Formats: sequence, structure tokens, C-alpha cells
Amino acid sequence: MTGRPSLRGIRVRPPAEVAADLEAAIAAIGPLDDVASARAAAHLDRLTKPPGSLGRLEEVVVTLAGITGRWDAPVAPAVIVIAAADHGVAARGVSAYPSAVTAQMVANFAGGGAAINALAATVEAGVVVVDVGVAGPPTAQAKDSRTTLVEARVRSGTGDLLAGPAMSTDETRQAIGIGLDVARGLVAGGTRVIGLGEMGIGNTTVASALVAACTGAPVEAVTGTGTGLDAAARTRKVTVIEDALARHAPDPSDPIATLGAIGGLGIACLVGVLLGAAAARVPVVLDGFITGAAALVAARLAPALPPRLIAAHRSVEPGHAIVLDHLGLRPLLDLDLRLGEGTGAALALGLLRAAAAARDGMATFADAGVSDRDATTGG
Amino acid sequence: MTGRPSLRGIRVRPPAEVAADLEAAIAAIGPLDDVASARAAAHLDRLTKPPGSLGRLEEVVVTLAGITGRWDAPVAPAVIVIAAADHGVAARGVSAYPSAVTAQMVANFAGGGAAINALAATVEAGVVVVDVGVAGPPTAQAKDSRTTLVEARVRSGTGDLLAGPAMSTDETRQAIGIGLDVARGLVAGGTRVIGLGEMGIGNTTVASALVAACTGAPVEAVTGTGTGLDAAARTRKVTVIEDALARHAPDPSDPIATLGAIGGLGIACLVGVLLGAAAARVPVVLDGFITGAAALVAARLAPALPPRLIAAHRSVEPGHAIVLDHLGLRPLLDLDLRLGEGTGAALALGLLRAAAAARDGMATFADAGVSDRDATTGG
Repeated sequence: MTGRPSLRGIRVRPPAEVAADLEAAIAAIGPLDDVASARAAAHLDRLTKPPGSLGRLEEVVVTLAGITGRWDAPVAPAVIVIAAADHGVAARGVSAYPSAVTAQMVANFAGGGAAINALAATVEAGVVVVDVGVAGPPTAQAKDSRTTLVEARVRSGTGDLLAGPAMSTDETRQAIGIGLDVARGLVAGGTRVIGLGEMGIGNTTVASALVAACTGAPVEAVTGTGTGLDAAARTRKVTVIEDALARHAPDPSDPIATLGAIGGLGIACLVGVLLGAAAARVPVVLDGFITGAAALVAARLAPALPPRLIAAHRSVEPGHAIVLDHLGLRPLLDLDLRLGEGTGAALALGLLRAAAAARDGMATFADAGVSDRDATTGG
Repeated sequence: MTGRPSLRGIRVRPPAEVAADLEAAIAAIGPLDDVASARAAAHLDRLTKPPGSLGRLEEVVVTLAGITGRWDAPVAPAVIVIAAADHGVAARGVSAYPSAVTAQMVANFAGGGAAINALAATVEAGVVVVDVGVAGPPTAQAKDSRTTLVEARVRSGTGDLLAGPAMSTDETRQAIGIGLDVARGLVAGGTRVIGLGEMGIGNTTVASALVAACTGAPVEAVTGTGTGLDAAARTRKVTVIEDALARHAPDPSDPIATLGAIGGLGIACLVGVLLGAAAARVPVVLDGFITGAAALVAARLAPALPPRLIAAHRSVEPGHAIVLDHLGLRPLLDLDLRLGEGTGAALALGLLRAAAAARDGMATFADAGVSDRDATTGG
């Protein structure tokens, strides 16, 4: 992994151009490759271990084969894509941190000082930070050798969703387009697994609204304490989300309009990454609640998407389990994480690497001269 | 990590000599260092993330500090110790595999072809295989560069626990002594975390009997399908265990006698590794059901032991949850593993490395110029 995939030249493109690419990506997302999965499963059963005894690691091997069409799907190079953007709604006191933290954390990612930088390094993954709509002055460049910064702002933060749509339909398409282009650039540069991450003060508010809109779940059930709200602030957050949904009455059968009304630019960018990666048969590792909300929206556009995703973990956010249920995904980890940034995805990449290492590195019963099962006891 | 810790000269020692060492190790196991834990927790709260948002990774950092007395406890070099031994009871059809597989798998470990070799490599851990009582010809030497083979047989397999005690009290002490010496050698060589693993056809039968004896849980509740028994073979296994417990009526307040009656040599060796590592304030990562049974026995000898242990995962074996409850440990992973060998411990080492990387690599709020919490919303 070079840590520096070629992502030069990514820019905000005309909405009509993106719309055509989006249709093409959606059309390219087909069913899993059952032949590759079966071949992977047969290979696993020849290795020196009781069949199935590596549990969910074996399931990961079979899933990666189905997604990629290769029984021995590579899991490196891997990259965590962090979509960063601000939300107009953040001014309404829905977060424990001020909006300025989004830009500050982008600078922290670029300097290599955030949790995701530390965790990605332990699994030899690169970090790509996409500024698709941060407010404030842009971060000049990445100083950390494993981190790439893509400056591609559609606008500097969304509008306040209580006063109008968070962004226009054209802006929504443009943010999706950035994600499609990031996925394309990464895949062209050799990236074989993409983990998703996000940064944006107000992200859980917007994700909760999207999840309520897409699933019909009550706002109360999908709204948590985010980065650490107290009970009064959480109640305010629930009210803001309910007011926003009452104002926009989003129609989940029109995912682009729903995304535009609620936001945000980062989630729209992740929708693009999800669809672009899936179209290229590259596995995507979800992180927590916000990347899950992006996947819900993306699955509304491309119903064949969910089996191409790997759920890294179950977050503390109460809406996350609802998201995972809707996507039909069972998370690999349950570690009480609630940071975002792709930290859970980075941890799950460690399990993908372990699964692939077992698949590729183990001896077979025949090669190792190990006796197979005793037929009198269950073999 | 060199992968070749110096373990030369380990040999079966006189039982009286071991008894003195064992008493010294037990006496050296004290409470956790709360000052170091508090310092680790305070450090975590200065890093650029909402307090507690890394969930169980933060808990791991605090636990490692308490065990070692260092707020920045190292997690490398790490080694997986696999205790390998055979059981007389294996002749009674309690496993899906023949007894010969134990020696064959030791050779497979030595050749680098087993799952644990592949998984340990992904977390840069060494593998130490201790032949404390395998039946059949010994494996000459390790060919894999990350693997060390320790030949220290107390005897070649235990006796059949339905016909008499699995081993004598002297043999039990000697096997514990091998474990104490392995822990001492590893710690002297610089190992900073020890993961436990085991290999031995019949191991789950013996572990189930020990867990029933130590916890009072019904045999039916602590007996699973091991490496893959069918229902009839599992019923036979339950009967064998019930008969063995009826014959020996083990007294859990005498853990050495209980271990001697039931076995096995590998579990006794793990008891020694547990106590030796804990006495040296080196964290031990448990694997699944069998290493958990060893920890239960060791905790009977040293009640201060359990907080010094990290539970890697919850195994498919039904008795494992009972073991973890008794030890007061919450596992990090739940991946439907049922292989043993230390594979779950190796995966958990990846989480320890991630936790330490976040602790050591992240910027503070002050250094990164990131704004801290907004006091109006819960800060």
C-alpha cells in the first residue's frame, strides 16, 4: 500500500454528467458471484482445521469471493475514505462540539494525529480525506505520509434543514459525483478494499433524520447522544429532527430528493463511494451509524448493493442496529465505539486481513499429512 | 519481535522445586495498579476524540495499565503459547478426530501451516509450541521462522480418566512447572503480552469436566460438540464426563488434585503460564473454552488472577460463557470461533495493538488546536 493513491484532478462536475455516471454505476451492480464463493468455501474445507471452525472469518472469505468474483480476493491495498463536510443544522446546538471542529479535525487527519490515522496504520491502510463541503478555510495539504487530502467542495457546509432543503438536487448529485470519482480513482490506483469514514459536526443528527425517513422508524428510536450530549440536548436534537421531517415530508422512494432535503454533503459523497466501489466489485467496509445511513440511501438507489457491504461493528448509537437490520448485515465487532472517522472499519480490516491470511497461508490436510475427521463421531 | 524467544534449557523439574516456585508466583500476584490505570484514563481524555468514544479499546488501555503498572504498557513483542498434549480419554470416541492429530498438528505448527501461524503473523506475534505431553514421536524442530518448539514432555499423554487419575500429583506439578518456566523465559526475553492457545485431541472433554468441577454447572450445560461431533457422539461425551466426575468426585478447593484427576498436561502447563505471567505483571490474553478452563483452575490457586486476564472472544462451546462469567471477564470478540490454537487470542492482539496505537499516536486537543466540548450540550 503506497498510502498515496492517485486522486489528482477530482473536481466538482456538472450535475448532468454525474447523473449519467450514477445511472451507469447502479446498472453495473449485480448479484454476488456464487461460483467464486463456492470455490472459496471448498478451499477452506481443505485446510488443516475442522470445517467452519474459524467461524465468521470463513464467512468473510466467502463473502469477499462473492463480491469480487475471485475466490482468493485480495484485501490489500486498503484505504479508508473519510468524507468531511459541515451542516447548517449544527448551529442549533445538536452536537457537543462546535462546527469549527470539522475543519480542525480535517487538519488533524492531514497531520496524522487522529484516531483513524493511528488505527489505519496498524492494518497498513491508507487514509483519504475528502473535503466535500467543510466550512471555513480549506486545509492546504496532508503532512502525514499515509494520508491523502482531496479538496472538492461542492459548497462550504449545507443550509439549515429547518429553514429549507440542506442542499439542492444539483448539489446532491455533485457530492455523489465526488464519491464516484474517488472510488474510481482508488480502484484505478489498485485499491482492493475501501473502508468508509466520516467527519462533520452534526452528522448523527442528519443520519438519524435520513434513517427515520428511509426506514419509517420513530425519530426517538434512531436518535442517540452522538459525541456526548446530555439528556436535555438530546431532547432538543430529537425535536429538531422531527421538525425537519415534518417540514420536508421526504419521500424515501426518491432518495436523491430525500438526501437533498436533509443532507449532508459528506453522506452524499459516501453514497457515491458506495455505488462506485460496488460497481467495480470492490468490497466496502462500513463503519458506524453515519456510513450505515449512507448505505441505506445508496441501497434505495441500487437494491443489489447490501450484500456487497461488510458491516464492521455495531455502534453505541441506537439507530445503528435498525440500519444494520434493514441492510441485512451482521456486524463483525461490537466494541461500544462511537467515534466515527472510519475507526471501526479500520479495526474490521484487521479481521479481513486475518481471514485472508488463513485462506492463503494454511496447509491443506493432504500437504501437512494431518488425518481428517473420524467418521464414527460426526465426520 | 524476534519470533525466537530464548527458551533453551526448559526441562521437566522435580515436583518439590516446582511447588516452591508455584507458591512464590501465587504470592506475587497482587491487585491491579489503580494509579497507572487512572493515569492512562486521564491521558485518553486529552486525545482528539470525544471522551470514551473508542469504547472497549479505551477499556483495554486502562486494563493494560492496571496489569503492568505502566500507563503506556507495551503490547509488543507478543507471543502465543500453545500447550500441546494428549489425553487417554481420547480413545473413548469423544472427538471427531483421532489422537494422532495432536502430533500431526504440532508438526504443522512447526512448519508454519496452521491457522495460528497465519493469524499470529498478521499481528507480528511469535508462536511458541510447548509439547508437554504429546503421544507419539516428538517433532524434531520448528521450520517456520516465527515458531519456537519447546520439547518438555512430562509423559506421553495422560491416563484414561475413567480408569484412574489422568496424571499423578507430581506430574501435575511438573506440567505446571513447564508453564511457569515458559512464562519466565518469555518475560526474560522481552515478551510483553502472552496469548494462550492449546492443541490436544480430547481437550474440550477434559475442559468440560474441569469447568463442571470448578463451577458446579451441569455437565450437559458445559459440554459442546468440540471440533464437530454429531448428536450421538456428543451424548457419549457427556456420559464419559459424568462418569469421570462420579468416579473422582473432585474437590474444587484442591485445584491441583482436581487437575490431576481430570487432566490434562496441556491445561496444567497453561495454569503455569497464567500464574507465571501474572506474577511478572505481563498481560495474558485468553483464547477460548480450554484456556478459560485453565484460567478457572489457576484462579482457584490465585484468586487475584482474573483481573489480569483479557478475554479474547466468546467461543461456540456452550461452557465458555459460563467460564467467562465465573472469571468476571467480558470477551472482546464474538466471531463463532471454535478452533483453539490461540486463534482468537491472535485476533484480540490486533485490538490490543490498535488500542495502544491510538493511545500512543494520537494528538491531544491542545497540540492539534482542536476545540473541546461545548458546555451547553453536555460537556
